[in-house]
Amino acid sequence: MITNIEKAQQRVKELEEKLKQAKALKQKVEARAKAAENKQKRAYDTRRKILVGAAILAKVERGEWPKDKMLEMMNQQLTRADDRLLFDLPAVKETGS
Amino acid sequence: MITNIEKAQQRVKELEEKLKQAKALKQKVEARAKAAENKQKRAYDTRRKILVGAAILAKVERGEWPKDKMLEMMNQQLTRADDRLLFDLPAVKETGS
Repeated sequence: MITNIEKAQQRVKELEEKLKQAKALKQKVEARAKAAENKQKRAYDTRRKILVGAAILAKVERGEWPKDKMLEMMNQQLTRADDRLLFDLPAVKETGS
Repeated sequence: MITNIEKAQQRVKELEEKLKQAKALKQKVEARAKAAENKQKRAYDTRRKILVGAAILAKVERGEWPKDKMLEMMNQQLTRADDRLLFDLPAVKETGS
């Protein structure tokens, strides 16, 4: 025979379980939203880089920006050999002055 | 009854067909190679833009390049509203001076 107190205790347990599940779901949804937001931010960052790079390279192409200056900047900036190769820069670059 | 001449004519026809097929295949393979080459070139172009853009934006971030100069350049360069929005530039830009 189930007493009213036992019923109430059972009900509390069920609600605690539901609350736990709801919290877990909330966390999952929040994590997914955050991941989507970060992905969008990275996409915007990349797009900004592409647009600025395209503008500079167009200026270099038109002779409005010195190519040497661009290459010197990239020489300073780039460390990965495959990236450096895209600008015909030598792969070796261990220690600078 | 098939004469030798008819046999020879048949053989020529078959070879012509084979040649046609081989030519078509060659064209298809060449087109595929060209498409792959163009895709690779576009990927390199995009990578170059990203690297140059990243270098410039890093300089702006570090205060080594005036942000105003970068924004003015982008203001001149960009026409698409969604691109301009990435730099907080107003969408309206119909005719310049």
